[in-house]
Amino acid sequence: LNKHKIFNDPVYGFVNVPYEIIYDLIEHPYFQRLRYIKQLGLTHLVYPGALHTRFHHALGALHLTTQALEILSQKGIEISSEEKKAVSIAILLHDIGHGPFSHALENCLIPNISHEQISLEMMEVLNEEFKGELSLAIQIFKNVYPRKFLHSLISGQLDMDRMDYLNRDSFYTGVSEGVIGFDRILKMLIVHNDALMIEEKGVYYHKSVLSAELMLIQILNRAKHLAAQDIDLFCTPALSYFLYNNISIDEIKNNRHHLNTFAALDDSDIHTSIKQWQFHSDEILSKLCRMIIQRKLYKVEIQSQAFDPKAIASKTETLQIPNGKEPYFNFLGSISNTAYDLSTGSINILLKNQRTIDITEASDNLNLHSLSSKVVKQYWAYLPMRYTSI
Amino acid sequence: LNKHKIFNDPVYGFVNVPYEIIYDLIEHPYFQRLRYIKQLGLTHLVYPGALHTRFHHALGALHLTTQALEILSQKGIEISSEEKKAVSIAILLHDIGHGPFSHALENCLIPNISHEQISLEMMEVLNEEFKGELSLAIQIFKNVYPRKFLHSLISGQLDMDRMDYLNRDSFYTGVSEGVIGFDRILKMLIVHNDALMIEEKGVYYHKSVLSAELMLIQILNRAKHLAAQDIDLFCTPALSYFLYNNISIDEIKNNRHHLNTFAALDDSDIHTSIKQWQFHSDEILSKLCRMIIQRKLYKVEIQSQAFDPKAIASKTETLQIPNGKEPYFNFLGSISNTAYDLSTGSINILLKNQRTIDITEASDNLNLHSLSSKVVKQYWAYLPMRYTSI
Amino acid sequence: LNKHKIFNDPVYGFVNVPYEIIYDLIEHPYFQRLRYIKQLGLTHLVYPGALHTRFHHALGALHLTTQALEILSQKGIEISSEEKKAVSIAILLHDIGHGPFSHALENCLIPNISHEQISLEMMEVLNEEFKGELSLAIQIFKNVYPRKFLHSLISGQLDMDRMDYLNRDSFYTGVSEGVIGFDRILKMLIVHNDALMIEEKGVYYHKSVLSAELMLIQILNRAKHLAAQDIDLFCTPALSYFLYNNISIDEIKNNRHHLNTFAALDDSDIHTSIKQWQFHSDEILSKLCRMIIQRKLYKVEIQSQAFDPKAIASKTETLQIPNGKEPYFNFLGSISNTAYDLSTGSINILLKNQRTIDITEASDNLNLHSLSSKVVKQYWAYLPMRYTSI
Amino acid sequence: LNKHKIFNDPVYGFVNVPYEIIYDLIEHPYFQRLRYIKQLGLTHLVYPGALHTRFHHALGALHLTTQALEILSQKGIEISSEEKKAVSIAILLHDIGHGPFSHALENCLIPNISHEQISLEMMEVLNEEFKGELSLAIQIFKNVYPRKFLHSLISGQLDMDRMDYLNRDSFYTGVSEGVIGFDRILKMLIVHNDALMIEEKGVYYHKSVLSAELMLIQILNRAKHLAAQDIDLFCTPALSYFLYNNISIDEIKNNRHHLNTFAALDDSDIHTSIKQWQFHSDEILSKLCRMIIQRKLYKVEIQSQAFDPKAIASKTETLQIPNGKEPYFNFLGSISNTAYDLSTGSINILLKNQRTIDITEASDNLNLHSLSSKVVKQYWAYLPMRYTSI
Repeated sequence: LNKHKIFNDPVYGFVNVPYEIIYDLIEHPYFQRLRYIKQLGLTHLVYPGALHTRFHHALGALHLTTQALEILSQKGIEISSEEKKAVSIAILLHDIGHGPFSHALENCLIPNISHEQISLEMMEVLNEEFKGELSLAIQIFKNVYPRKFLHSLISGQLDMDRMDYLNRDSFYTGVSEGVIGFDRILKMLIVHNDALMIEEKGVYYHKSVLSAELMLIQILNRAKHLAAQDIDLFCTPALSYFLYNNISIDEIKNNRHHLNTFAALDDSDIHTSIKQWQFHSDEILSKLCRMIIQRKLYKVEIQSQAFDPKAIASKTETLQIPNGKEPYFNFLGSISNTAYDLSTGSINILLKNQRTIDITEASDNLNLHSLSSKVVKQYWAYLPMRYTSI
Repeated sequence: LNKHKIFNDPVYGFVNVPYEIIYDLIEHPYFQRLRYIKQLGLTHLVYPGALHTRFHHALGALHLTTQALEILSQKGIEISSEEKKAVSIAILLHDIGHGPFSHALENCLIPNISHEQISLEMMEVLNEEFKGELSLAIQIFKNVYPRKFLHSLISGQLDMDRMDYLNRDSFYTGVSEGVIGFDRILKMLIVHNDALMIEEKGVYYHKSVLSAELMLIQILNRAKHLAAQDIDLFCTPALSYFLYNNISIDEIKNNRHHLNTFAALDDSDIHTSIKQWQFHSDEILSKLCRMIIQRKLYKVEIQSQAFDPKAIASKTETLQIPNGKEPYFNFLGSISNTAYDLSTGSINILLKNQRTIDITEASDNLNLHSLSSKVVKQYWAYLPMRYTSI
Repeated sequence: LNKHKIFNDPVYGFVNVPYEIIYDLIEHPYFQRLRYIKQLGLTHLVYPGALHTRFHHALGALHLTTQALEILSQKGIEISSEEKKAVSIAILLHDIGHGPFSHALENCLIPNISHEQISLEMMEVLNEEFKGELSLAIQIFKNVYPRKFLHSLISGQLDMDRMDYLNRDSFYTGVSEGVIGFDRILKMLIVHNDALMIEEKGVYYHKSVLSAELMLIQILNRAKHLAAQDIDLFCTPALSYFLYNNISIDEIKNNRHHLNTFAALDDSDIHTSIKQWQFHSDEILSKLCRMIIQRKLYKVEIQSQAFDPKAIASKTETLQIPNGKEPYFNFLGSISNTAYDLSTGSINILLKNQRTIDITEASDNLNLHSLSSKVVKQYWAYLPMRYTSI
Repeated sequence: LNKHKIFNDPVYGFVNVPYEIIYDLIEHPYFQRLRYIKQLGLTHLVYPGALHTRFHHALGALHLTTQALEILSQKGIEISSEEKKAVSIAILLHDIGHGPFSHALENCLIPNISHEQISLEMMEVLNEEFKGELSLAIQIFKNVYPRKFLHSLISGQLDMDRMDYLNRDSFYTGVSEGVIGFDRILKMLIVHNDALMIEEKGVYYHKSVLSAELMLIQILNRAKHLAAQDIDLFCTPALSYFLYNNISIDEIKNNRHHLNTFAALDDSDIHTSIKQWQFHSDEILSKLCRMIIQRKLYKVEIQSQAFDPKAIASKTETLQIPNGKEPYFNFLGSISNTAYDLSTGSINILLKNQRTIDITEASDNLNLHSLSSKVVKQYWAYLPMRYTSI
């Protein structure tokens, strides 16, 4: 065997061809013709870069499928090597029935026949040529195979077909709005009750950032509390100035020295202090500092209703926090996703007739969507249990 | 003058410093300290790449502002060079009052004082040092300058601050969901009644793709109509086969030859024919072919209610289309944005407690948003007037 | 076990932590401190983006190593899972001994002690803490383990340390000259006689492009040969014009029709003809056309001396090519890498003293290197044996 | 005027069409046909992404030319608006004479006629149609216009044609080795004696990184010198430990405490100290610290021979450095570009016949070039004059 099993994809980089039969199917004239069928029909007349073809899309979807199968296997979902090969074949050939200009001429050149029907016919022909090696792939493609999540990888809300074309179309048109974090979504895939879905941890992932920042605030609060009692704290002169004094905005306005001392501060003043405060005799300060330096972040719980303080109290008891010191370790609060706070103004579109409309009324708002997300309020509780992440 | 006026930004590439005073402000210790203040506080504990600083963000926002001012000038919005310089100074210094760890410690290290207040104090100090050269910048920053759209570039729904940080935070965290088409939005900016907004044309831009595809379909329809009358048409043997015969799915299933002839087709069979059909004696065919080859695409009108056929008819009269042939040239229809058709299934999240919820219920759905856009139905009419685009 | 085993890298995307112990080592304070040690010392004063740290570099080098081990395994190099884990540990910790500002202060803060020595000491301490689990990693790190290629992955001409930092430094400084095709190089790695090297096929990869183009030329030559004998050939009218007539530049200048006919040609005229010519009665034409449509490209042999025609002839005999028709199937020739042909001019640098020097004399020409590659002449022979590639 | 003057390029983002006539030329059928002529002929058979066309390349080269003209103007090179328009036209049309499959079939379809000759003929025809508006563009294209550097932008060692195709071909093939820092090169362009060349400053740009690092070393040296005299220095306990003690590698090996104290150090220990040392009573220490915090970096001089110490001494006299303290402020030394130090090993290629050869012998080494740069030794002197950069 001396076949090249690698190809170069501008979207994903170097990519492997995972099976011998995949290589042979790629070589087949049915598949080679996809080189000359543009993925997006005439889109290139408006976006000149959109010259990519069904050939490249099929290989890209294959690549994502290979990765998804690998990830699911690593998570303990049992998928036999026969099933893996069959899914790979099915995704490779899912669009093989497309004709000239893909969707643009579908049902026009040959009326009343969809590309999926022709794909299926071609798969049956190839199955004969390859002596039955495509039988399982065809079952999965037709969704008659019992393990339904395998079909979902080819066609469904989280399928690899869409995952590839959203990326690929963005790449070649230069319209970045379609970019999705395919890599991230792939890593979060899981199978539950034979259905493909997304793991929770991925969804709440960035909450641990807030956890770290809440700890930092408590550290400074505690340090100022100690400073107010004239307890000694290692720190740079500039930081010392603000820990041991309370400066008002008027004082800042009237005395240049305050402002210049503030201007001597940056992240490193805080960081060097926290490193040293790990060994301070005040238990609360040192505990919080050790937690943040060693990145033992709080565990977060999130819900759409406010937390019941009693429920929190009961958890805290088990955590051996010095009496009365819970406020340094438990945090309750709420956040909203505030990329664009619509209450403070809106984005308007200037129509050609010089009328203006709000962006949310514009009919084609999909592409500007990230500028106008709706606000969701959430309540959270951070508790001092270890939350692991790198 | 021998100052370097260029810097290198991984996000935007090489970038110019537009004014002498901007260079001098960058050199000032107040500004240089921003090198050591992380943009995203402790986010790097979760996303290790998020080490970028307020220094880099301020330079990036300056770069976008320089571009926005240039684009607005090119569109005929009069902005004096003094105003341009002032806006540039204001955006450069908009975050200069941030202290250690940016927002994470705001209102904590110095209680009750926001970073904007300190920014303003520092700008006043710098204004003294630079002998009043920042006065206009300060007016714009405080939004007391009459031309309000200039302030909107610094703070508002379309400001350059947000435009930069959405891009920059995505770049450094590696989370692509925040990527916006800043380049595209910048190019669409316009000022109307002293307010910053977005031009309509940008919003409807990709509709002309659909226009081209509708024309292509009419060409094939006309060609098949002529073929049915045994009129001669230049084309490849494989295309000829499907123009002059009507093949059903059953025939395809039963006769391998049909499928193999279909497999001989690709985009180039259609394209070479259309090039030749420009000179065909049938006026409708040749007119449609010339339009698409020369990219004289239809003009599209879009509205959220269905079109009134009479209104269409009245427009058509003025266009000298052969009597009874309007259906080849006017198209009415509707589309929905169908990235994910929620009617056919939903995306589920698997919670840690093994319960599943729909993605639209997940509290942190922002990042997966592109997978679940709401469906908007629109009605369109394409009319044979020239729609220009490259 | 409920540990996050994934992190987000702006350079490579989402990345897995491959072993439990790797996760625990990342959590160790020795390793966490690398978060605060910049990879490039003070480089950020000149390239503001260069804020990345040893922490991220170590994780990146780990990621590339995981991939390299996987690729070598797939090629049949036996590497035990113990060896894989040990190499992963060794690359993760290879820079753990770096102190503040990395190389900038090496041998200064603690004179005469290199960071490698401290790395080794820390690895020994960690080995105690982890009860000997790092013993094999330390052997490989010290290059005392018999299988030397494993050490080469950590330190050598093709090591993953360098592979990561060349990429990463480019990414964060925004200087694209350092970008290497790491993905490509990884895929080409092979082990031979216990040494890490690069497979030949990768090196000669793009030669098959030339192969395809030579075949295309022969097809047109053959078609013109047949046209000269008035043999019928399916093609578009415009292509026919140039196949059946010989047009000179003077004729083009004097008769607008020639130019306009030429302007009617594009790739698709050739492509549709070749598809049809696969079935032409001329054996040479049809054979060449089938070869290119089915992508059975020539095999290429390359050497730095000219080929001996007799050697070629002897190979050809075995290939059953019609007598006297070899010139259509065998090609001899030579090429040079001609990115910039220095014989036609040079690139000059304008010095501050207004003197000019050639770029190859400039002391710091590394970054402009791609503009002045030296010319290498090669001789090639293409022979009609199948050369596989996608 | 209601023409779209913008298009979307995956390589450069949104791009403007600078002149009305450029728009009209793009609309001309001669130019529109370039949409169907692949830039790289049959390369897509090996690199499936290489489907980009002459149309897109011409627009890209136009974009770079617009930028280059703007940059040269900003540097004071006088270029009239007529000249700018003419160069823009000439670069847009430089490849308009290409036929099917570009270079692959050049001289084959129409023997003995180059694409440049046809480009010129088409430009003459267009000049008639546009009533002489292309006359100056044609002069520049033919290099008969007196200002030769304008032709160099279209054809020469630094032309925008090559600048675009190196980028574009890399982008679409996915082979990153061809990526050049086009943005950087554009910014460095200058005209001298009517010839296009590169400014020196760009070439030596990154030397100021070394400057900063040399200053940092001197700061630590001075601090240790003061510590040896028991002079008090603000610093963190961990840094203090290494400033006031000399620790050997044996001590580190034998006493865990040394190693753990070292492990408490990171960049911030040094940075907070340097900020404070700006105000130390030792003049040398405080001067060096102020220089680095305010980024007043040394000026560097570089030459290929060693420096004469007397010449350095004479420069130093004028700089009022305390007697005998020059070693803290003047640095002499040498560096080599050491991406890959060939003295410590080489990169081997494993041939199919199992022979190995050095990468520098491989005939096709262009693509792996960055792995084997030749070593250039340079001598440098850093002197305490201000070197400005951001």
